[in-house]
Amino acid sequence: MKPVYYENGALKMLDQTLLPTEEVTHSYTDYREIAAAIVDMIVRGAPAIGVTAGYGVYFGALEFEKLPKETFLKEMETVCHVLRATRPTAVNLFWAVDRMEGVIKNNSEKTVAEITALLKTEADAICSEDIKMCRDMGAYGAELIHRKDTILTHCNAGALATADYGTALGVVRAAWEAGKEISVYADETRPFLQGARLTAYELQKDGIPVTLITDNMAGWMMKQGKIDCVVVGADRIARNGDVANKIGTYSVSILAKAHGIPFYVAAPTSTIDFNMWSGDDIVIEERDTREISHIKGQQIAPDGVRMENPAFDVTPHQNVTAIITEKGVVYPPFDLSIPRLQGE
Amino acid sequence: MKPVYYENGALKMLDQTLLPTEEVTHSYTDYREIAAAIVDMIVRGAPAIGVTAGYGVYFGALEFEKLPKETFLKEMETVCHVLRATRPTAVNLFWAVDRMEGVIKNNSEKTVAEITALLKTEADAICSEDIKMCRDMGAYGAELIHRKDTILTHCNAGALATADYGTALGVVRAAWEAGKEISVYADETRPFLQGARLTAYELQKDGIPVTLITDNMAGWMMKQGKIDCVVVGADRIARNGDVANKIGTYSVSILAKAHGIPFYVAAPTSTIDFNMWSGDDIVIEERDTREISHIKGQQIAPDGVRMENPAFDVTPHQNVTAIITEKGVVYPPFDLSIPRLQGE
Repeated sequence: MKPVYYENGALKMLDQTLLPTEEVTHSYTDYREIAAAIVDMIVRGAPAIGVTAGYGVYFGALEFEKLPKETFLKEMETVCHVLRATRPTAVNLFWAVDRMEGVIKNNSEKTVAEITALLKTEADAICSEDIKMCRDMGAYGAELIHRKDTILTHCNAGALATADYGTALGVVRAAWEAGKEISVYADETRPFLQGARLTAYELQKDGIPVTLITDNMAGWMMKQGKIDCVVVGADRIARNGDVANKIGTYSVSILAKAHGIPFYVAAPTSTIDFNMWSGDDIVIEERDTREISHIKGQQIAPDGVRMENPAFDVTPHQNVTAIITEKGVVYPPFDLSIPRLQGE
Repeated sequence: MKPVYYENGALKMLDQTLLPTEEVTHSYTDYREIAAAIVDMIVRGAPAIGVTAGYGVYFGALEFEKLPKETFLKEMETVCHVLRATRPTAVNLFWAVDRMEGVIKNNSEKTVAEITALLKTEADAICSEDIKMCRDMGAYGAELIHRKDTILTHCNAGALATADYGTALGVVRAAWEAGKEISVYADETRPFLQGARLTAYELQKDGIPVTLITDNMAGWMMKQGKIDCVVVGADRIARNGDVANKIGTYSVSILAKAHGIPFYVAAPTSTIDFNMWSGDDIVIEERDTREISHIKGQQIAPDGVRMENPAFDVTPHQNVTAIITEKGVVYPPFDLSIPRLQGE
């Protein structure tokens, strides 16, 4: 299940705002529209945003390919700026745009056409590397999952959040493919309902047993002994192991700790911000409160009521049992184990 | 704000399934329809259900008033049975029906017309006592609230859950009326959205500052120091202080404990089941999973996905700082302090 892919000269995106009731794929060639698709969450999930932004830079280059190099380079600065300004929390976005910009900088002696071709190659590489990373992560993570485990996950860190296969759900898929007879509880994940709309959808498609619950049921399921471990994704991981992820992840981590349940984070090393010393510095995106007051256009809260809508929260490293990456599983003390991943 | 009241020979109910976007009041005279209104959550909240069931018994009596006494008594058994069978968790329902049945039993020598008249008096008494209890509870509870406190509440334990004034929100109202400049965070409370639809609505109407959040944001608000205490209602309290309340209350209690935040339960002594030794014996109602998969008729989950929908959970007494009743505030050890309330 590929939420974003290049095909026949266009970037295709499965519209995640319409799932699970409608399966609609849009075609993009304008980088501004690609940026808007990130803002509007047509595509979401840190790795998938990275892949999308990579192609976004390429389509920007394609648009300005006929211009003199100096003008081209100027326009490309704008392209990168527009893409970076879409969403503030997921580090993969910045990592992907930086990587694309590196291609431009490192090939400044080449022609504009050559640079554009190289940008296509780089965007393709980000995409295919993402799939490989997810599979590697899955293989490492599956070793932490026991036969017949029931795994709680929050939000959607699945195929739909990556180029394919998923991070947290990559671990689930790998355990399932290894014949471990696992099952999954999916938090619906208000306000955007990624759990109900996306996680339930993609696990059901793959035939992996999944039970949908509202976010406030997770603790009660733990209390009843129905949850063996938690696996979630990440939007940004600080050098000390603090994890920014979808709002509600922090609460789940507290609940897991209170019930003695392991709490695993699955994320590629591109999600780690090696320059950030602690999660306290992570910028938390505040989104439109209409996401809370309305569901599918239906109003569920009184007019004019005050609301807050932080899209993410930060789980302190003390609540994280292990972080599963494509390079292996790292354990506390994270301030020692995480920097080692950078060198590899 | 009265969600259920007797007027001009009918029982009036503000339709809580339509709030906050529509304010519709229905009229009932048939006890079967009154029972259905409880099942369909036109009226909800443990104390309000008790008041409704009281009038339900009266309207049953009115229907059979012309029958010979023996047949009348037989029919009244059915009436009480139908009302008791509506919802299993809230103890006030059984308490109110028991009380009405007691009037029938203690006046068996009287005429059917006399018994029916006494049932009306008793239903009115349950209703007016409920309002008085809420005000008394509010006065006791307000002493626990500090000036400028921000109070987190879950679900709706407000005027809309009682005959008027509310239990948890009665405490809020009393503190507000005492000039304490408090504010409230309201969990939206999926799946039925009582927080978004009812708590936000009634506090806004009263001009008490309220901020609506999704359930999974509560922990993050606590982490940021935005919550000073939690006040919730209860559907049933066991003799040891274990508290059954709306699903998600258990998670909030764990989060409060982890952040060192007091967790208060406001409930009349009619909510205490003195015959139940621990919360382990409380029956948890499982409701239709369509409440999860659909919001206002809009589908938000894939067809055929497995779901669980427990309507309540049980917060262990270890997580409860104090219980606020109309007879005063009781503290741990609850197995000593709660039985004393029965004697008073």
